[in-house]
Amino acid sequence: MSFVARLHRAIAGVGGPCMVGLDPRPDHFPEEFRPARGANIEDTADAVRRYHRQLLPLIAPKAAAIKPQVAFFERLGPAGLAALADAMEHAHELGLLVVADAKRGDIGSTAEAYAETWLAGAAFPAADALTVNPYLGEDACEPFLRAAQRHDAGLFVLVKTSNPGAGLFQDHGQPTLAEIVADKIAAWGDDWHDEDGWSSVGAVVGATRPEELAAFRARMPRAPLLLPGYGFQGGEGRGLQAAFDDHGCGAIVNSSRAILFAHEREDLAHLPSWQDKVKAALDEMKGDLSPLVSGGIRG
Amino acid sequence: MSFVARLHRAIAGVGGPCMVGLDPRPDHFPEEFRPARGANIEDTADAVRRYHRQLLPLIAPKAAAIKPQVAFFERLGPAGLAALADAMEHAHELGLLVVADAKRGDIGSTAEAYAETWLAGAAFPAADALTVNPYLGEDACEPFLRAAQRHDAGLFVLVKTSNPGAGLFQDHGQPTLAEIVADKIAAWGDDWHDEDGWSSVGAVVGATRPEELAAFRARMPRAPLLLPGYGFQGGEGRGLQAAFDDHGCGAIVNSSRAILFAHEREDLAHLPSWQDKVKAALDEMKGDLSPLVSGGIRG
Repeated sequence: MSFVARLHRAIAGVGGPCMVGLDPRPDHFPEEFRPARGANIEDTADAVRRYHRQLLPLIAPKAAAIKPQVAFFERLGPAGLAALADAMEHAHELGLLVVADAKRGDIGSTAEAYAETWLAGAAFPAADALTVNPYLGEDACEPFLRAAQRHDAGLFVLVKTSNPGAGLFQDHGQPTLAEIVADKIAAWGDDWHDEDGWSSVGAVVGATRPEELAAFRARMPRAPLLLPGYGFQGGEGRGLQAAFDDHGCGAIVNSSRAILFAHEREDLAHLPSWQDKVKAALDEMKGDLSPLVSGGIRG
Repeated sequence: MSFVARLHRAIAGVGGPCMVGLDPRPDHFPEEFRPARGANIEDTADAVRRYHRQLLPLIAPKAAAIKPQVAFFERLGPAGLAALADAMEHAHELGLLVVADAKRGDIGSTAEAYAETWLAGAAFPAADALTVNPYLGEDACEPFLRAAQRHDAGLFVLVKTSNPGAGLFQDHGQPTLAEIVADKIAAWGDDWHDEDGWSSVGAVVGATRPEELAAFRARMPRAPLLLPGYGFQGGEGRGLQAAFDDHGCGAIVNSSRAILFAHEREDLAHLPSWQDKVKAALDEMKGDLSPLVSGGIRG
């Protein structure tokens, strides 16, 4: 089954286009997982592994996918990447899709090495999809496309990111850089899509940019959109309708800190445990986002 | 001592602006290091480690720096990244600078995590410099700049890459995207440079583009240039003069496959061992490039 079909099925299964970003910051873990001051890097990586083992079963009934942010595992070196592999494997056992947020981009055989790393299932469990940076051009994206096709995986190519300064380069030119990247993604989707029209080549467009969503959706009619920046960065569900079609297909929304740091949220302070707070934060997200797929997503 | 000062000193020390890219492809290793068919990933990573332990002492007398291509280590998972840490540590012991070619780029605290990973010396030995992808904008580059300043490290920001299709996005607009990225790098260098005028914020410009070098050099007068694509990808020393000033300062040239695959080169087949072939390939590179710094580099 193609990535985009798995994505739509997973969203239908949980009843909301919810994705949870894993950005492990051990200093902010619930107290029982927080490494001691001066803990070495292996002990810290082990805390990350133990935390995710407890966190992922809370996420699985309410979200379609997780988006591990590779930077936060890489920061803990080889032991951190082993903790990432453990989380990916455990997520798959729980039925969650895994989108490796690595934002990789390079040329030729180097791009191929990155694509194989994340999509082939050798060094790491195969991710269902990978985020890719397009700066180096189409010939640099092709190895990722070929690997995604080979492994029934998906890509989310950066188009317009969620940070305040994204426009400096992404809005350059007329049409803008982001628009010509979007046009390339649309062309790749014309070459590679399911019978229902959806492609497994998607795009990243910040949930912080509701005013631009309709235009990007129109420019990339086959591309699933990954919308980061929801929650903590300020995105809200009601602004995201334009990313979804009448059947609720076409997009998934990511929240990281509002879920992971639920135990630090004052509005959830009345709940007894960090697990209750995570569940409440997930329910809140799902309540906000499920109207977006109320048309009855195919899955 | 700043990164750019260390770079110039290292180039002066070996008498040529030579950098060797480490792109470990175990199937192409000299026979004594080549993993057996069906070797598991840990054994393959161990072969990578053993090969670099033998290779780096051949490189150190003739090159200023190595540029490990992180993709090829990441492909071997946690064990591969441990082999990278081993190579970085051994390179430093031999007096080689290390430029981690990771092409990372992300926003906010994620960018900070990548920058700390490669420049802080916790999870990995601290690299002397890191390659960075600017697509996400200035606010996404700032965490890398701050980390580089904090750790006396350098950055090489992608401007115009060496692949044939680089222009698709990098030449977009008027001025081009690559030109406005270059202007940002120049501005960062105005804010952060040594007394001699050179900055530790550099740029990547393909050695395959000699016709564009003078314009990029003029646009970024303080930026050291990392010129990849020399040798196997077709770049030649005589075309690169415009990247260097009259003292031989301002650039370093990378070769990967022409050195690493020297034992597969027909023109070196008359030499008895893979070590002799690597040394001959390095001498050839140095002979071609040393005229570029014959003005007597400061170091």
